[in-house]
Amino acid sequence: MKELRPAAVRELLTHLERLPGIGPRSAGRLVEHLLTCAPDEPARLGEALVTLRERVRLCSTCFLLTEEDPCPVCSDPERDRSTILVVESPTTAWPVEATGEYNGLYHALLGHLSPLHGVGPEDLTIDQLLQRARGEGVREVILATNPTVEGETTALYIARRLEPLGLTVSRPASGIPVGGEVSAVDQVTLAQALQLRRRV
Amino acid sequence: MKELRPAAVRELLTHLERLPGIGPRSAGRLVEHLLTCAPDEPARLGEALVTLRERVRLCSTCFLLTEEDPCPVCSDPERDRSTILVVESPTTAWPVEATGEYNGLYHALLGHLSPLHGVGPEDLTIDQLLQRARGEGVREVILATNPTVEGETTALYIARRLEPLGLTVSRPASGIPVGGEVSAVDQVTLAQALQLRRRV
Repeated sequence: MKELRPAAVRELLTHLERLPGIGPRSAGRLVEHLLTCAPDEPARLGEALVTLRERVRLCSTCFLLTEEDPCPVCSDPERDRSTILVVESPTTAWPVEATGEYNGLYHALLGHLSPLHGVGPEDLTIDQLLQRARGEGVREVILATNPTVEGETTALYIARRLEPLGLTVSRPASGIPVGGEVSAVDQVTLAQALQLRRRV
Repeated sequence: MKELRPAAVRELLTHLERLPGIGPRSAGRLVEHLLTCAPDEPARLGEALVTLRERVRLCSTCFLLTEEDPCPVCSDPERDRSTILVVESPTTAWPVEATGEYNGLYHALLGHLSPLHGVGPEDLTIDQLLQRARGEGVREVILATNPTVEGETTALYIARRLEPLGLTVSRPASGIPVGGEVSAVDQVTLAQALQLRRRV
């Protein structure tokens, strides 16, 4: 049995397989694509990778990804400073913003509470959130952590810590995804959707 | 609604989303990983991408990926030169070789026949295969194209063109994957597995 994979392929494969969601088979397919795509494409992807790490950092206020600190949201005088929407991961703010329904501020926790993995409150940006919530004019904190066990736990923990401040603390509704099928929705979501039913 | 994704992130996302099997969501997850992993990792991945394109090419005889031409298999005096195993894609030779069951030569077609997508015999390395098959000492050609409509068509086409040479032309068996469940196998595969049944 011979090693058929050239050294440069093996080197790239070890890097690719470290990426989340990429197993040996998809890494192989990526290598094939990268060998057959436009000749300058891999180099341009390589440059974009280096630039990313050089330019992008976390906003020191809200922890969204940004090239300037404070980020464009935190420094925008047009945003509604009375509301802070809390997400687990900075990139979750992107689809929220894309709805066009939200004009307040954001706060990324950089994860969720997970005692099993040794992630406690001090590993997230919860203290920074509390400090912001104590600031002038803040009236509502929307806890848009994921509706998973960890996300719910994190939301509950933060809600309890926000309690003394007397703010409105809310959570987005869970329910049947628009365009989805009732029969395809899990029991827990369906139960939530029924509890949150609205008159038509 | 604001553009929350920094320019360097958008640039990387456009490159990532061009890769096969990577949609907007997995691209987002990759960006997050690349921003939080070891600081030198993205640059090392970038280098590996550039090196790949500089060093790796196709063997001019068998069209496997290689850094030297002819490739290590074609130039190895220990390989059995009487057998050529034909694969659609160069990387498919890797798992075949990893079985340790095969010691012959390879030939990558660089695709399969697909009239709908305008891929005819002249777009593959079929002529080169025929030329090799005519060479001295070749006795068997194993057509290990995928057991898909396109792969079967390609195998049939090549088998017909090889016919005048009087070689053994074979195809790997289709059947129930080892470790799989009989009930999980599709009808066509199951029918093949039954036809190819062996006495125990």
